[in-house]
Amino acid sequence: MNWTNNFTKKLNLQYPIIQAPMFGVSTPEMAAAISNLGGLGSLAVGGLSPDATIQLIGKTKSLTNKPFAVNLFVHEVPSYNEDEVLPMKQFLISLAKKRGYVLSEDDLTNFQFYTYRDQIDILIKENIRIVSFTFGNLDKDSINQLKETGSTLIGTATCLEEAVILYDHGIDMITAQGIEAGGHRGSFIENKDLPQIGLIALVPQIVKEVPFPVIAAGGIYNAQTIRAAFDLGAVAVQIGSAFIASTESLAIPSYQQLLSNTTATDTTLTRAFSGRWARGITNEFMREVEKSGLKIPPYPIQNSLTTKFRKLAQQNNDKEYTNLWARQSAKTSEIKASKDIFLDLIKQVEESEKL
Amino acid sequence: MNWTNNFTKKLNLQYPIIQAPMFGVSTPEMAAAISNLGGLGSLAVGGLSPDATIQLIGKTKSLTNKPFAVNLFVHEVPSYNEDEVLPMKQFLISLAKKRGYVLSEDDLTNFQFYTYRDQIDILIKENIRIVSFTFGNLDKDSINQLKETGSTLIGTATCLEEAVILYDHGIDMITAQGIEAGGHRGSFIENKDLPQIGLIALVPQIVKEVPFPVIAAGGIYNAQTIRAAFDLGAVAVQIGSAFIASTESLAIPSYQQLLSNTTATDTTLTRAFSGRWARGITNEFMREVEKSGLKIPPYPIQNSLTTKFRKLAQQNNDKEYTNLWARQSAKTSEIKASKDIFLDLIKQVEESEKL
Repeated sequence: MNWTNNFTKKLNLQYPIIQAPMFGVSTPEMAAAISNLGGLGSLAVGGLSPDATIQLIGKTKSLTNKPFAVNLFVHEVPSYNEDEVLPMKQFLISLAKKRGYVLSEDDLTNFQFYTYRDQIDILIKENIRIVSFTFGNLDKDSINQLKETGSTLIGTATCLEEAVILYDHGIDMITAQGIEAGGHRGSFIENKDLPQIGLIALVPQIVKEVPFPVIAAGGIYNAQTIRAAFDLGAVAVQIGSAFIASTESLAIPSYQQLLSNTTATDTTLTRAFSGRWARGITNEFMREVEKSGLKIPPYPIQNSLTTKFRKLAQQNNDKEYTNLWARQSAKTSEIKASKDIFLDLIKQVEESEKL
Repeated sequence: MNWTNNFTKKLNLQYPIIQAPMFGVSTPEMAAAISNLGGLGSLAVGGLSPDATIQLIGKTKSLTNKPFAVNLFVHEVPSYNEDEVLPMKQFLISLAKKRGYVLSEDDLTNFQFYTYRDQIDILIKENIRIVSFTFGNLDKDSINQLKETGSTLIGTATCLEEAVILYDHGIDMITAQGIEAGGHRGSFIENKDLPQIGLIALVPQIVKEVPFPVIAAGGIYNAQTIRAAFDLGAVAVQIGSAFIASTESLAIPSYQQLLSNTTATDTTLTRAFSGRWARGITNEFMREVEKSGLKIPPYPIQNSLTTKFRKLAQQNNDKEYTNLWARQSAKTSEIKASKDIFLDLIKQVEESEKL
């Protein structure tokens, strides 16, 4: 396997392998571990405050002097009134109580929302060379500002139409996210059914129709799937779930264990945790929200409404009441350092060649 | 590319490429064309009468002396009473009228249903060496009868659990059907959400856990996707939608044209046509049935209820009122002979190697 290609050359990497940004799971330590090995680590800062953003970037820089990507969420904050979300609030408070957690109405009120527009200046000041994003396209000003400083912009597409939009707006590369992927869907075309396209159908179609480099994401975790992605025409692969059960992960032990113990883990798409579609292992919280029949407020409102609840569950290692993002068939092996997971992947691919 | 492997040796083929059985689209001529070139043609006889089964097998044999597969539907016929399906009947009659077709209640009554049990003796008598099937598992007697005569049995799985069931019952090989596939889902575990697993997640998982040969199906149509499937650990690929726009296809011209003209064709899963989930290009019939809010009777009842309507639409080249099964991103090129589509695939794969 010749790892060097235009992607690694452009971004100054040794391997065309990206550690996926996984908000709530990935850490500066994880990103730095992968970047230090010549892959591309990703720092997830979507929706964070300027201060938190600065802090995480600083932490990552203190751990690596190699390139890493900073990943933004591209969303607007919809106006809403408290009355509209009252039924969901009451439901969550009562559900928490049933589980033995104390959630007050104050915990679910007066949120402070941030968007990527609060972060662009920071990225420029911090000289971030690789900016990836999901949930939409950056606005024109942000694109221009980042491109003027020489940043490489990587968008996310879940169908051909989204890839075309990103290309037409001057985005440099895209991550093609197959339906297999764990976590949030990057889909952003409104008033359309959520695209649910398998990676093997998605990548060749985008490669054929849109002349920019395509990174394959979703369901990639071993030598076979890495090779398949390159066969499909991808210039790089993005790997997420394989790093959930790592020592640098924020995932709670019961979540990590579930991944390593479950065969053919059943994952489903849900809006219950954040208001945006995301793939996770089905648990009680998802089932209860669905059963309630309540209208789920859009992202980021539902996300904020469930944040405290999820934090309480995490503090109690309670996998039934926090999000368990995972790819389809996310059976992972025992918990290892991200470094070892990465090196094992490289070794697997290289050995598969000799067969 | 070394085309020879255990699969081609066992089945006496030159190429590990299967033309998918596509009921209503594939024909004896299509199957024979592929088998004559050293691939494996498939004859779809699911749900047909013994007479029709004998006739199609005879026709195929008259066109090739190479091996071909005969594909069965494994379903039971649920008992039902006419009252239950009356609302659907009335809806279909009125929808047909709106479109200018005459459909009478007689057309939708007193169906004669057949199952694979009416076909096993025929397959044995006709000395069919390769029997593939979908929608479930054959019963023990049928498996024993077919295996005694030396037939190779190929089941269909859409998740690991189904593959394990088939393996445990002595089935020889399985077709792993990714969510990308056009047409009916082969899923058969009841009281469970429909598995919607992308091929890139499904194949390696089954290959790892179940020690029988795995055929990859869904979204495969060119050199990249064929290579990717073999990388994932498949011993063969099954290709369907690529043959819809062929001269041997039963697909009506407007359906074939839609495939060749539409970029990023939107397909969805629907139960509207047959009562079983299947992937097709969204059209008016699907939208109208969904809008009706009526309960869709299970397969094969809904299938029989819509048969005459679809036949009328087909006679009028009316793509809005018949099923347009297609894989995700099923953009095909101009209409060609199946032979040329097949040879072009072989050539593409061989040339991709030289790059």
